[in-house]
Amino acid sequence: MKIQGVMPPIPTPFDPATDEVDYEALRFNVDRWMKTGLAGIVVLGTNGEAGLIDEDESERIVAAARERIPRDRLLVAGTGRESTRGAVAAARRAGKAGADVVLVRTPSFFKGQMTPDAFVRHYMAVADASPVPVLLYNFMAATGVNLLPATVARLAEHPNIIGVKESGGDMAQVADLVSLTPDDFSVLVGAAPTLYASLCLGASGGIVAAACVIPEECVRLYELTGAGRHAEALALQRQITPLARSVTSGFGVPGLKAALNLAGYRTGAPRPPLQPAPAAAIETLRQQLGAFQEVALSS
Amino acid sequence: MKIQGVMPPIPTPFDPATDEVDYEALRFNVDRWMKTGLAGIVVLGTNGEAGLIDEDESERIVAAARERIPRDRLLVAGTGRESTRGAVAAARRAGKAGADVVLVRTPSFFKGQMTPDAFVRHYMAVADASPVPVLLYNFMAATGVNLLPATVARLAEHPNIIGVKESGGDMAQVADLVSLTPDDFSVLVGAAPTLYASLCLGASGGIVAAACVIPEECVRLYELTGAGRHAEALALQRQITPLARSVTSGFGVPGLKAALNLAGYRTGAPRPPLQPAPAAAIETLRQQLGAFQEVALSS
Amino acid sequence: MKIQGVMPPIPTPFDPATDEVDYEALRFNVDRWMKTGLAGIVVLGTNGEAGLIDEDESERIVAAARERIPRDRLLVAGTGRESTRGAVAAARRAGKAGADVVLVRTPSFFKGQMTPDAFVRHYMAVADASPVPVLLYNFMAATGVNLLPATVARLAEHPNIIGVKESGGDMAQVADLVSLTPDDFSVLVGAAPTLYASLCLGASGGIVAAACVIPEECVRLYELTGAGRHAEALALQRQITPLARSVTSGFGVPGLKAALNLAGYRTGAPRPPLQPAPAAAIETLRQQLGAFQEVALSS
Amino acid sequence: MKIQGVMPPIPTPFDPATDEVDYEALRFNVDRWMKTGLAGIVVLGTNGEAGLIDEDESERIVAAARERIPRDRLLVAGTGRESTRGAVAAARRAGKAGADVVLVRTPSFFKGQMTPDAFVRHYMAVADASPVPVLLYNFMAATGVNLLPATVARLAEHPNIIGVKESGGDMAQVADLVSLTPDDFSVLVGAAPTLYASLCLGASGGIVAAACVIPEECVRLYELTGAGRHAEALALQRQITPLARSVTSGFGVPGLKAALNLAGYRTGAPRPPLQPAPAAAIETLRQQLGAFQEVALSS
Repeated sequence: MKIQGVMPPIPTPFDPATDEVDYEALRFNVDRWMKTGLAGIVVLGTNGEAGLIDEDESERIVAAARERIPRDRLLVAGTGRESTRGAVAAARRAGKAGADVVLVRTPSFFKGQMTPDAFVRHYMAVADASPVPVLLYNFMAATGVNLLPATVARLAEHPNIIGVKESGGDMAQVADLVSLTPDDFSVLVGAAPTLYASLCLGASGGIVAAACVIPEECVRLYELTGAGRHAEALALQRQITPLARSVTSGFGVPGLKAALNLAGYRTGAPRPPLQPAPAAAIETLRQQLGAFQEVALSS
Repeated sequence: MKIQGVMPPIPTPFDPATDEVDYEALRFNVDRWMKTGLAGIVVLGTNGEAGLIDEDESERIVAAARERIPRDRLLVAGTGRESTRGAVAAARRAGKAGADVVLVRTPSFFKGQMTPDAFVRHYMAVADASPVPVLLYNFMAATGVNLLPATVARLAEHPNIIGVKESGGDMAQVADLVSLTPDDFSVLVGAAPTLYASLCLGASGGIVAAACVIPEECVRLYELTGAGRHAEALALQRQITPLARSVTSGFGVPGLKAALNLAGYRTGAPRPPLQPAPAAAIETLRQQLGAFQEVALSS
Repeated sequence: MKIQGVMPPIPTPFDPATDEVDYEALRFNVDRWMKTGLAGIVVLGTNGEAGLIDEDESERIVAAARERIPRDRLLVAGTGRESTRGAVAAARRAGKAGADVVLVRTPSFFKGQMTPDAFVRHYMAVADASPVPVLLYNFMAATGVNLLPATVARLAEHPNIIGVKESGGDMAQVADLVSLTPDDFSVLVGAAPTLYASLCLGASGGIVAAACVIPEECVRLYELTGAGRHAEALALQRQITPLARSVTSGFGVPGLKAALNLAGYRTGAPRPPLQPAPAAAIETLRQQLGAFQEVALSS
Repeated sequence: MKIQGVMPPIPTPFDPATDEVDYEALRFNVDRWMKTGLAGIVVLGTNGEAGLIDEDESERIVAAARERIPRDRLLVAGTGRESTRGAVAAARRAGKAGADVVLVRTPSFFKGQMTPDAFVRHYMAVADASPVPVLLYNFMAATGVNLLPATVARLAEHPNIIGVKESGGDMAQVADLVSLTPDDFSVLVGAAPTLYASLCLGASGGIVAAACVIPEECVRLYELTGAGRHAEALALQRQITPLARSVTSGFGVPGLKAALNLAGYRTGAPRPPLQPAPAAAIETLRQQLGAFQEVALSS
């Protein structure tokens, strides 16, 4: 089961008045994404504010998304937890609620203890117990720990571990992930600004925040690269990059939510301590989105 | 309410066979600590493996400790969560279960969004809602974010925020915390190797892992400094430092648990992905502890 | 004047007995590199141990290399200094001694003062005074400061600043450098493991240590990418990467010198406090080089 | 030869019009410092902009300072270089020019190669060759490498290595330096905000930028701590800290020069790419200095 293509790590809509999950808005958004060429949907990732959401809510979010995602598209659910038993339980609940794949971020709190062997034990236990296939997830900028390519290679031998999402921008590490793992192992990039370069190096797809906002452009970048149309792919990458930055490192989850609200999705506000994007950020996003609407109109 | 003296951030005992919390062992350990000069007990801190423990377990741990801690000693419970609503709920549950004070670590996952203003909003909301006083908790080496002294000074104005635990070794920051906050605000150091230096600079006490293993020596260091017996305090600090390192940065929570098991406490094993300390670490700990038993005998 | 192709940042040979520069060995090596498809030679870069070499030696090294480099190939000389006046003087001396281009690393000692404006003033002054064109040089892993793409874009307006060598692995930054600078501005990558990815993104060439040891393979990677033969380029990149790592982050300048000595070049030993590569490193290098000789034989 | 007391790492005056060293101003400043209780003078340290000064200038600076420093006070000269041979040559020149002690910063450019063994070889070679005693110098924030206490302990066995200047704020490291070295080995702190804490831990003195501007207050802090008058020492430390920050991490060497100019010393301007402190910084410094003049008047 190789994952190919582009998937958005979707935000979780919260009602600004009550701070509760707005499942209706979630379904509305998923319906809209399902009209595009996206390969699936990722819920409860970093951009889904997973760390701010409790276990019961998590289960309902998976179920709500599943209602609107046809079986020929993937529903991936983030289920990383700091303890192995917590990660096992979360994977089981997500699988039961309808996830096709679980995305399991590295535990990271006890950084000094997170050796390669600790990662191997953790992921092996999760993969043994999970009712659905497991995607590893490395996001060093957020966690402060690095799941090295050599460790990923060890884990790729487990039949229930099917790939890795790598969110770092270091292409040498992406290249190593591709080189050291089997051909049917999915290496997915986690940052849109390096999507084209990662695809050149053999990544099979991406889970990138920009794909929430401009799904068709991200899918097209994937397709152009696959077709060997490198000059066009690179030109499109350059168009995508500024907006891709704004909805990640630039303005964070608040920026992603603001951009989606501008584009007609319904995401409400982030959960505190996160705050809505400030007016200046929204104005920047409006301009960056405007450029894409022109592209859409002219093509 | 100023916190003065030394408290141990106690580990949570897990049954090695079942990975479940061993409440009986917890009570056994607390009983023993209560026979020393410790000012109280901290449960569900970093060394309590708080991040690996679920909400129901957390509540029971607070209640179990409360059973054995007399009212004239403090029970502090770690209740930090990534979301403000989660931190509010955890503080309420801990207060109801018997905690005297809650210790609230900085949220940190969305590092780029964790501005001083975000920290102020988060802690103000928690302090407004908490039924018991709040201790701020800054641990940059683990979280990657820094709660600056100027931000602590803003928060110190809230009547329900009574102090801060600072776990970094930078004494300039500790000195600033003391300088910028009122006299009745508690600045507690979180690392035993800098306990003496922090007390010199005006810290009112410490929450240090070494105090789990050698409580009397840590209390004595506090008392010597308070009495102006600086030469003796410094000599004792030097004795304490090697073991203090081993049970924190050296061998981590597994090292702390191993040292306590050697000393006759009952902590079982850490929760996976943490693993028990390796044999070489245990041997080092045995030697370091041995030195203290001689001290105890000869004094 | 756009720089296209691959250049090696050559090590400076020192006589192991006297610790003096061995100019004869330098000439010998340059002669050999000039028989390959390399676009030129870079002396006194990081791998040239520039920081360990005094001003008089530097001038003689440039002159010695010039003797053996025909005018249709480039001689680039590293002339970065911490002071602006030092960098100006070094550029003038290198130009006089025969360099075609100077490569000017960012000053970095006073990190807090190295603002974008400080970099602009420094480089503008150097570019005004230098008798030959200037290449900017950013190497954050070694210097701890980052010359941002926006700053490079400002500097690209100076007629005597013709390009940048970027040694970081973050492809988003490389992509920005290409996007934000004019088409005739040279973006050169400084690390062989990301050479192919950088070329995909529009870099015009590379100054990479691996090109000292396996010049023809690096040149061929450049040509394959330019010809749109992406699958072959990627396969060659994968072959190159392990050795490329060994002669940079793996074993450092001592590793590069050892690899070159194995390959029949004459580099002597590094200058203390650097030490020759240990035996285990040499054995690894021997194996990695062996793989390439087979490739060479079979092609 | 144990160094006890406080010494200022003095800035090098440059003529703003010509960017040349102003030796007359240097003598003027030294004369003034010699009227205070400072234990000596440090030239060509970090604050002396040593990295921006060439070899001939360095020699003349040492000689000029020596002219005005009586033999019963110390002249310490910074002579760190990246190469061992360069550091040896610089120590010899400084000794010949009149330095009593040389202060040798860690080489740091090839960070990955700067192992404990490399440091030991480097410093042993310098100490063997130097005509005057050697002070080690660790400044991790600027260099990115750390000279560990265990390495310093090895080096302390050399009869010509008499101490270490440690510029980090981590008091655990300062405590280790004191614990692991002989009683006659000098541990000098390099940052005024941690001067009192370091003295509590057994440091024998400090080389701190604040001592350029407010020498008497720094000397008094040293004396109060030595006399066991801890409450007064701590109060004075708090007074000193804000200004001490401004002339180091706050506004850098430009801030130190501006503060000295305000106080009637003659330092000219920093050497480019450093720039004079901006007006707002100067205003802050003026206020901070004003507070001290009141203290001086009232005492």
